[in-house]
Amino acid sequence: MVDVVRTAGAPTPGAGEIFQILRDGTARTKAELAAITGLARSTVSTRVDALLAAELVAPAGEAASTGGRPPARIAFNPRAGVILAIDLGATHATVAVADLAGHLLATRTRTQDIAEGPEVVLDAVIAEGLSLLESADGGADRLVGIGIGVPGPVEHETGRPTNPPIMPGWDRFDIPGHVQRLCDVPVLVDNDVNILALGEQALSWPAVDDLVFVKVSTGIGSGIISGGALQRGAQGSAGDMGHVQVPYSRDSPRPPEDERDLEAVASGTAIAAELRAQGIDAAGSTEVVELVRAGNAAAIAATRQAGREVGEVLATVVNLLNPSIIVIGGSISRAGEHLLAGVREVVYRRSIPLATQHLGIVQSRAGSTAGVLGAAIMVTQLVLSPAAVEARTARG
Amino acid sequence: MVDVVRTAGAPTPGAGEIFQILRDGTARTKAELAAITGLARSTVSTRVDALLAAELVAPAGEAASTGGRPPARIAFNPRAGVILAIDLGATHATVAVADLAGHLLATRTRTQDIAEGPEVVLDAVIAEGLSLLESADGGADRLVGIGIGVPGPVEHETGRPTNPPIMPGWDRFDIPGHVQRLCDVPVLVDNDVNILALGEQALSWPAVDDLVFVKVSTGIGSGIISGGALQRGAQGSAGDMGHVQVPYSRDSPRPPEDERDLEAVASGTAIAAELRAQGIDAAGSTEVVELVRAGNAAAIAATRQAGREVGEVLATVVNLLNPSIIVIGGSISRAGEHLLAGVREVVYRRSIPLATQHLGIVQSRAGSTAGVLGAAIMVTQLVLSPAAVEARTARG
Repeated sequence: MVDVVRTAGAPTPGAGEIFQILRDGTARTKAELAAITGLARSTVSTRVDALLAAELVAPAGEAASTGGRPPARIAFNPRAGVILAIDLGATHATVAVADLAGHLLATRTRTQDIAEGPEVVLDAVIAEGLSLLESADGGADRLVGIGIGVPGPVEHETGRPTNPPIMPGWDRFDIPGHVQRLCDVPVLVDNDVNILALGEQALSWPAVDDLVFVKVSTGIGSGIISGGALQRGAQGSAGDMGHVQVPYSRDSPRPPEDERDLEAVASGTAIAAELRAQGIDAAGSTEVVELVRAGNAAAIAATRQAGREVGEVLATVVNLLNPSIIVIGGSISRAGEHLLAGVREVVYRRSIPLATQHLGIVQSRAGSTAGVLGAAIMVTQLVLSPAAVEARTARG
Repeated sequence: MVDVVRTAGAPTPGAGEIFQILRDGTARTKAELAAITGLARSTVSTRVDALLAAELVAPAGEAASTGGRPPARIAFNPRAGVILAIDLGATHATVAVADLAGHLLATRTRTQDIAEGPEVVLDAVIAEGLSLLESADGGADRLVGIGIGVPGPVEHETGRPTNPPIMPGWDRFDIPGHVQRLCDVPVLVDNDVNILALGEQALSWPAVDDLVFVKVSTGIGSGIISGGALQRGAQGSAGDMGHVQVPYSRDSPRPPEDERDLEAVASGTAIAAELRAQGIDAAGSTEVVELVRAGNAAAIAATRQAGREVGEVLATVVNLLNPSIIVIGGSISRAGEHLLAGVREVVYRRSIPLATQHLGIVQSRAGSTAGVLGAAIMVTQLVLSPAAVEARTARG
């Protein structure tokens, strides 16, 4: 089994640095790497040899000759290992096998009730993952890590959910400990909105360092990438937009004494309740989306108003964090442009010009696989870090 | 002149890594460094020798002998260079000389009107700095960088202020370019609240990765440290709490249609206006602080209410960023516990328990030198980064 991050020994110093340059997928010659880094050609050679031995890079054909034997090019080898990525929802689980570039090699979704509790759910999805790995990649011997997204707050350092409202039996459960008894590789766990933020960034905004992903669905949450890094905060609860208090909005028909949090006024659940109060049959998010798509005027108005409420909180996010891109996702965002229109209306009016002149507010482009993609990216950030790569090159 | 960051050549790979361990100031033997890093003793030796040659570390006496010749210990040498740190306010400038550990060796404050414009102000404070350097350290030949804090938003990458409201003539002015014509070293510029956040962290909370510093003074601003890094956002305007819209607070006597930003309801200027509306003579922040200290009931009530307003926005900050520590500074915070009491009252009531159970809300402990301290820290983060240290060891 390939153990990228825990191999001790004498690494090849600087191999990690060369590797980070090659991670963009471009094939380069040693001379090109020497030019980029300013390092001596001999130093580059030693490091590249260590990376070749560790299989993290591979020969990638020859460059055009400038006379004489054409120089060999090398490139990142994303098949040096595989990752198991798992996205747990309330009623479904998506399991994927990804390569080290975060590309999904195989994906499977199964019905899985999160309320069955951690042992049952984790044993089932890991078994599913190992079966998928067998068919996609011939087995678990090249597995380097497992990334898991769950629908609730997580203390990222320990991988334990903390008071997750829709995950009965999971509070403080040691997810990595349990999973590692089945598969002894690094296991990383995070809130689903955080892995969705990573997935959105990887898929559509790889050059953006400041991105906020907002999920508007049955509940409301966000994943914050700032300064190039996912921000989890001191206890892992960063990005909890749904519980921001919204005391009063002048656009809102609600009286000022009705003080509630954002989730209570702008989630799919809240929109459905608003519609029911108007005599319209809407049990939850699913019906809201259907009504909007069918052109129901009340549903469209309520969705746009929900967008304005989300926009009120996002205007504060913009002043505080000055992101380049806000991505709106979740089921309600898929009901058309109405949610986004409400968000844009308020954010551009309320935030300071310096923070909004280059700000994009866009709909999520990622499909149902954004979660597993983000879970895979989370693992690559650990196992392909400069330190991990230096440790791995020590095996050569 | 020592040029830490721009020296090209063949560095000693990994010297930067060894150096980061020694930056805590503890003296260690090569054997201890080998044990900490897991590196071979010979590798540690090569790297330490390079650091010794670059003067970044120095011999620090001998460890207890375990028989035979006692092993030599080495430690970080903060005197390998000096930093010029400048904190520009509206009417005063503080100039300091700091060592590479961020310790202030000499400090001087002068009357300096920011409205005199960038050339006049910068020429004056750099001259002051060079004179201070001469008396504190014998001259500018060991200067490795200059850090400057200014009272307005800055595009950190270019060091240019962007629409600074109280800095006439400074908009888009190339501060590093101008200063480098006088002193050819790296010049870093940032908003004063950002350098205050760095100063507070260095002084009182070195182990805290998630800290928000709020300045409540004539205006209101904040510096956000999240995930261990100062967050500046895409255009450098992150932390702009003062312009967060506060449409309505149920604790506030203001009617809901009176929609304004936080600065307009909770700054020293706003409190003074509120008091004047009550027939009390208060021109600005200074008088507010005097009245509160003298026990004026209306001033105390207005200050506490300002704290609640700041608390409303901070409750959102807590949900979004989950900090461990919120530090309240600025002149109004020095009027006693009243501002803080208002902040605490709202934040602990409004934020989610997971985010507040380990949250401290404290008064700034740093005095008038926190700004120059933070400016010095900002420079050390650049010139003592692993990459910069590796470049510097290439000179050996």
